Amino acid sequence: MAEALIRQRIEDLAKAIHTKDINGVMSLYASDIVSFDIDPPLRYIGADRKRRAWQEVFAAYSGPIAYEVRDLNVTTQGELAFVHSVNHVHGTLASGHASDLWLRWTACFRRIEGGWLIVHDHVSVPVDLKHGQAALNLKA
Amino acid sequence: MAEALIRQRIEDLAKAIHTKDINGVMSLYASDIVSFDIDPPLRYIGADRKRRAWQEVFAAYSGPIAYEVRDLNVTTQGELAFVHSVNHVHGTLASGHASDLWLRWTACFRRIEGGWLIVHDHVSVPVDLKHGQAALNLKA
Repeated sequence: MAEALIRQRIEDLAKAIHTKDINGVMSLYASDIVSFDIDPPLRYIGADRKRRAWQEVFAAYSGPIAYEVRDLNVTTQGELAFVHSVNHVHGTLASGHASDLWLRWTACFRRIEGGWLIVHDHVSVPVDLKHGQAALNLKA
Repeated sequence: MAEALIRQRIEDLAKAIHTKDINGVMSLYASDIVSFDIDPPLRYIGADRKRRAWQEVFAAYSGPIAYEVRDLNVTTQGELAFVHSVNHVHGTLASGHASDLWLRWTACFRRIEGGWLIVHDHVSVPVDLKHGQAALNLKA
């Protein structure tokens, strides 16, 4: 039951990202979310900062963003849940270039006042530590 | 109570990393762990693969590895827990160069047969997507 609700929330999130619906996207996050996002800084805290991060993502793409959540795994008990997936993001950048990226997504949820909210997320690609390069061409 | 146990497990993990105690490190992981690790691939599954990843890390450093877990946040209920922290790793590489790195660490635990084990982890640094660079010089 909790798992079905969380899966629905994540499906809604992907749709909201696709249509750049900022309020739809933000409805997933707790006000005090601690985020380890794909780009710097190392960490940030709070939904206001998360909103800004999404607004920057939306501005970086000229049209809709294709956002697919693949291999979603959901573990839940009581009022906690954690999920992970590999997400495929592609679209046309404002520069006109096509972007096609697979990222790793982990999100930790709490049920707060009856609704499931993300209190912590972690989004990344692997890196080649030796050469300081991001691994942007991996596929699931 | 669960939180104190998990904090102790993580303290033990940091000590085991420091002394390159592979069995101590591996005692934290569930056999079917799904790992989003700092370097490629995008994802891997299983404790055998995790053991190999740690053996490669240990071989990359010529001496002990200083591993500090900073700002550890633990959330637990029943038989689930999730934790996150920013970890400071430094030491001398086999090449003779000094390495000093801050990474983001998220770990999801389940209590399995009475013991807390990591069933999913996510370790990363942020990246500059535009230039394809890993952000290796950030500090918490």
